[in-house]
Amino acid sequence: MSNSKLNHPGDGYLAWLQYRRVTPEANVNPYAGYEHIVVAEGDDVVIRSAVNELTQGLEGITGGKVSVSGKTMKTRSVIIGTFGTGSGIDEAFSEEVSSAIQPEGYAIHTDSLTGNITIGAATSQGILYGVFHLLRIMGTGGSVHNLNILENPVNQLRMINQWDNMDGSVERGYAGESIFYENNRITGNLQRIQDYARLLASSGINAIAINNVNVHRVESRLLTEFLPDVVKLAAVLRAYAIKLFLSINYASPIELGGLSSADPLDAGVREWWTAAASEVYAAIPDFGGFLVKADSENRPGPFTYGRDHADGANMLAEALKPHGGIVIWRCFVYNCKQDWRDRTTDRARAAYDHFQPLDGRFMDNVILQVKNGPIDFQVREPVSPLLGAMPHTNQVIEFQIAQEYTGQQRHVCYLVPQWKEILNFDTHLRGEGTTVKRIVDGSVHGNAYSGFAAVSNIGNDTNWTGHLLAQANLFGYGRLAWNPELSAEKMAVEWITLTFGTNELLVQTLLDILMNSWEIYESYTAPLGVGFMVNPDHHYGPNVDGYEYSMWGTYHFADCYGIGVDRTSATGTGYTSQYARMNMECYESLESCPDELLLFFHHVPYTHVLHSGKTVIQHIYDTHFEGAERADGLAAAWKLMKEHVDEQAYRQVADRLAEQVDHAKEWRDRINTYFLRKSGIADQWGRTIY
Amino acid sequence: MSNSKLNHPGDGYLAWLQYRRVTPEANVNPYAGYEHIVVAEGDDVVIRSAVNELTQGLEGITGGKVSVSGKTMKTRSVIIGTFGTGSGIDEAFSEEVSSAIQPEGYAIHTDSLTGNITIGAATSQGILYGVFHLLRIMGTGGSVHNLNILENPVNQLRMINQWDNMDGSVERGYAGESIFYENNRITGNLQRIQDYARLLASSGINAIAINNVNVHRVESRLLTEFLPDVVKLAAVLRAYAIKLFLSINYASPIELGGLSSADPLDAGVREWWTAAASEVYAAIPDFGGFLVKADSENRPGPFTYGRDHADGANMLAEALKPHGGIVIWRCFVYNCKQDWRDRTTDRARAAYDHFQPLDGRFMDNVILQVKNGPIDFQVREPVSPLLGAMPHTNQVIEFQIAQEYTGQQRHVCYLVPQWKEILNFDTHLRGEGTTVKRIVDGSVHGNAYSGFAAVSNIGNDTNWTGHLLAQANLFGYGRLAWNPELSAEKMAVEWITLTFGTNELLVQTLLDILMNSWEIYESYTAPLGVGFMVNPDHHYGPNVDGYEYSMWGTYHFADCYGIGVDRTSATGTGYTSQYARMNMECYESLESCPDELLLFFHHVPYTHVLHSGKTVIQHIYDTHFEGAERADGLAAAWKLMKEHVDEQAYRQVADRLAEQVDHAKEWRDRINTYFLRKSGIADQWGRTIY
Repeated sequence: MSNSKLNHPGDGYLAWLQYRRVTPEANVNPYAGYEHIVVAEGDDVVIRSAVNELTQGLEGITGGKVSVSGKTMKTRSVIIGTFGTGSGIDEAFSEEVSSAIQPEGYAIHTDSLTGNITIGAATSQGILYGVFHLLRIMGTGGSVHNLNILENPVNQLRMINQWDNMDGSVERGYAGESIFYENNRITGNLQRIQDYARLLASSGINAIAINNVNVHRVESRLLTEFLPDVVKLAAVLRAYAIKLFLSINYASPIELGGLSSADPLDAGVREWWTAAASEVYAAIPDFGGFLVKADSENRPGPFTYGRDHADGANMLAEALKPHGGIVIWRCFVYNCKQDWRDRTTDRARAAYDHFQPLDGRFMDNVILQVKNGPIDFQVREPVSPLLGAMPHTNQVIEFQIAQEYTGQQRHVCYLVPQWKEILNFDTHLRGEGTTVKRIVDGSVHGNAYSGFAAVSNIGNDTNWTGHLLAQANLFGYGRLAWNPELSAEKMAVEWITLTFGTNELLVQTLLDILMNSWEIYESYTAPLGVGFMVNPDHHYGPNVDGYEYSMWGTYHFADCYGIGVDRTSATGTGYTSQYARMNMECYESLESCPDELLLFFHHVPYTHVLHSGKTVIQHIYDTHFEGAERADGLAAAWKLMKEHVDEQAYRQVADRLAEQVDHAKEWRDRINTYFLRKSGIADQWGRTIY
Repeated sequence: MSNSKLNHPGDGYLAWLQYRRVTPEANVNPYAGYEHIVVAEGDDVVIRSAVNELTQGLEGITGGKVSVSGKTMKTRSVIIGTFGTGSGIDEAFSEEVSSAIQPEGYAIHTDSLTGNITIGAATSQGILYGVFHLLRIMGTGGSVHNLNILENPVNQLRMINQWDNMDGSVERGYAGESIFYENNRITGNLQRIQDYARLLASSGINAIAINNVNVHRVESRLLTEFLPDVVKLAAVLRAYAIKLFLSINYASPIELGGLSSADPLDAGVREWWTAAASEVYAAIPDFGGFLVKADSENRPGPFTYGRDHADGANMLAEALKPHGGIVIWRCFVYNCKQDWRDRTTDRARAAYDHFQPLDGRFMDNVILQVKNGPIDFQVREPVSPLLGAMPHTNQVIEFQIAQEYTGQQRHVCYLVPQWKEILNFDTHLRGEGTTVKRIVDGSVHGNAYSGFAAVSNIGNDTNWTGHLLAQANLFGYGRLAWNPELSAEKMAVEWITLTFGTNELLVQTLLDILMNSWEIYESYTAPLGVGFMVNPDHHYGPNVDGYEYSMWGTYHFADCYGIGVDRTSATGTGYTSQYARMNMECYESLESCPDELLLFFHHVPYTHVLHSGKTVIQHIYDTHFEGAERADGLAAAWKLMKEHVDEQAYRQVADRLAEQVDHAKEWRDRINTYFLRKSGIADQWGRTIY
């Protein structure tokens, strides 16, 4: 049963775990009778979660009362269990199937005679994922008559990073306050955290760092004083097969340990970390490890002591290694005190320049976490050239589910298509087909660790994500981390159906909204890959020169003649040389550089003609007029759904879309006015620009 | 004696009340022997303050021990007393003199035989001011041999507005936290407030509103719950002849009184205010009255009820009238939710448009407080056309001593020259010579009330004003309010000498720094009267487009051809028509409009040639290069003073000047780069623009 008190179907709290009764056209419930669960073998916390979830799910979907039993088989039962335990699970599957199942994988089979559905796995986790899979099929109205499913996750690490601070705030959080902390304590609301764990596990997430990578003095003490509370969180998460990680403060030996140094080569410092790790593992034997932002944006790190990132990471890795823990070291390192007058320093180069030369120096339980692009989660930027460029180093890709630069969950922006594009990007690092997804799944370089990480987009808003439609990003992220081959469209349909039901018109409308949303958002914001143009600090809303004279290294250099950043090797910052030759040549040349990234790589006159046949300036005007109009269209389409959606859900989405419509016009007018004033070139269609 | 524990001579706490031993060239103290005070008549709190001050001053200046006696006259005594009391004071002055003394005035006379100095006045306040005058003469090394002084204040109301909030913050405060409040309570540090009162009284201030014009929920309760603490403040201030005013929340009848309305025509509301006023006067019989910011920047006001400002102000005036209290109603009213696309709305017009039509409607104990310019305390703007434009209405001019837009007490900017220029501006409203100072002193229209108000620049920084040199603005404001004919230079020399002593080189250097500072600040910031170009919200530092697309109504409309706001009547917003014909014609015409206000009144091409012979664009480049260079010069000049100044004072000023030097370069480069990029016109001298 739902553990939540907040479960009005339209408030969004249940998200995609609605488990609503499916009423297809025929008016016959195809899942009727699936009211028996057989636990063939096993009794641990994860199995118990799986059984709870299955019970809750089947009761919702069938409308019946579900019973759970031991070994007795019935018709239309759902049988779960692990292989090789003599429980009869093995018999439901071929040897081939069961031997193909990896630790987190599972198989699902329907016996055509009895209708019994068996979920077999090598581990409890596998069973949990199999149960969520079955419920997803039922929740989306799929057939369960002839299931023959074998699933293994493509990526090993499927992680969420909470940017939650212990004061209750969430850095770049757009959905209320933290569900983990308030008033510099871990919140006692374990129910909410359990419900979050259910959402994560159901989409395939298996790891979480529970505090912000910017670790302040109070969060440092999660390692020590607050550890007993962390243990409680770990227990809640463990039941959903999610490993807990902590973001750590590199200066902890000083701040917590009273040492005079945090030098990674100092024996005392190493001992301090070794002891700290031991204490954590004594309390949480399956603790995941440390997530570290060091020497970045004013955070402390090994640079202070003349050491490098490898020294810094390896010291922590050594402390964790005996316990099987890992260090995840973020590569978001750049000069954040840049002089805007200095055009030779290029923030885009920074991650590669800092880390690539260190390849081979990191211990095997260190993973570098690399942001998807070289700048910072912009609506459009090229793929980070660091991804795959360190064959002897573990890497995970970092996405940001929170829409910091893509509408902050006030605008709808379904990010899965963007992520797909990034994952399908061919780096050419090991010849054609060296796609990012193959680098990230570890297969290109044979990494010991690899996978996905992403910044969470949830908070204590009832609907988790502020914008109800932003739930699709959390769901889609997990699904994509499990299997990057899934299409953005399929994941969208899954999420829509699970959340809103199967009304075809509604599904199609929401699908259109989601699938167009990224393009629409891009069209009325920063053009042609140039990035930023947002208000400083909070990053919401248009401000073309917002970062133009700042120290953050994010410039567009617009003058009365043209715009863009020359990052070529021939005449610019040389950033293009960080790519494999094929991509380097593509970006280097004005002829081959894709339109959407033109201003990221080149400074061109406003009269430069794009592949589309338009000039840059006309492209800016056209996309901004169209984008604002299309935002209008989203709101109009949603209005037609009023009678097909729960009223509260309708209102939530309608309100956000109304804000987007207004704000898109503001974007349109500010950007167009800025460029008309600067270029003096009129819109060829004579539309109103102020 | 000094009551303060913070009295290291270089920490700035004593400000211009150093009372240091004067050691002129001759090495003979010209004030030696002035060690006797005779209180001829009177014993009230103000007299006691005067005696205390005189004692402290003479002891400091003479180095001797000062005695106070009753009626016995001695040689080299300082005798104080009020006229017409048979105390012998009258005898020291001619009938002509004593009859010319107004309530706050005083006369000072030295008897050439005895060297006795008599300070006579009609009131205790007059004596206090006379004492400060005498100490100022001695503090600046002036002769006291043949004093024959008769002084009356030119302006009746000489007021300070504290923008202090009860949480301890100070709106637009740049010198620490509030000295009046902390943690939503009135602070217990009455000593600090007394020392502030001494500073104010010594420069001639006679009124203070002790809380921010933006009155939040907690400050509303100063009228009620916190009144007993307000009484204590009033007592401290009363001893220095300073009347206490409260800024009130127009919604108080609702928030405090539980009424459902704050409609000024509602009988219940009127009763509420009448009762509130009575309670305040019962506690503070000499309470000054209310300062009100209503219907401005989201503050509540009579507009809510379809009433106008006259209705709103008169209701309060009626409540205060029986007690002799006044209402000071601010005219800073404009649409702060303007659409930047709308060029017909002109914030500069707002105060005049709102208030001028109401002339004659206000009760005689209402004063309108009019900001000096039509926008908001910019480094350069024209004089507000509302000043003097309401012959039947009391007005005071409002300055801002706090340098919100003029360097925030991080840059040196001596504002007295700016204020002088404003006060000397000829409005031509009653023919030639209708200067602002004559409007403000009440003589043009024969107002019952008139004078000066200004936003304070002090906080709990030890030196009161953050930048030690910013003390000159507080001192100068008070002196100017007393007598607008004083020259900026004279006031600067007074302040310098009182604060730093009489070293000629030092005085001349500081005088140069102060007297050039406004021009320097103007030269590297927003050019030619266009205003703003600052970062939003905090208003510090350059941001050319910072307000260009905002709702605050402060735009420059720069495009690739030109810049400026067309406020002419012929083709623009018609703002010029708010002036008397002479000024209107001057501003309306490109030929006669003064260069320094050109972009305030006109939109011109960058190639427009100024009266100076330079183009607008070259003027921008030249002034910005020169300004930054001259800022460098200020720091260099101060460096040479190292050996002539107390080390701590030297360091305080040197640090601020160093920041100014850096920040002036940032201004220079951002402004120049912005306009080079926008105009495409190169600097004719080929200097580096980025």
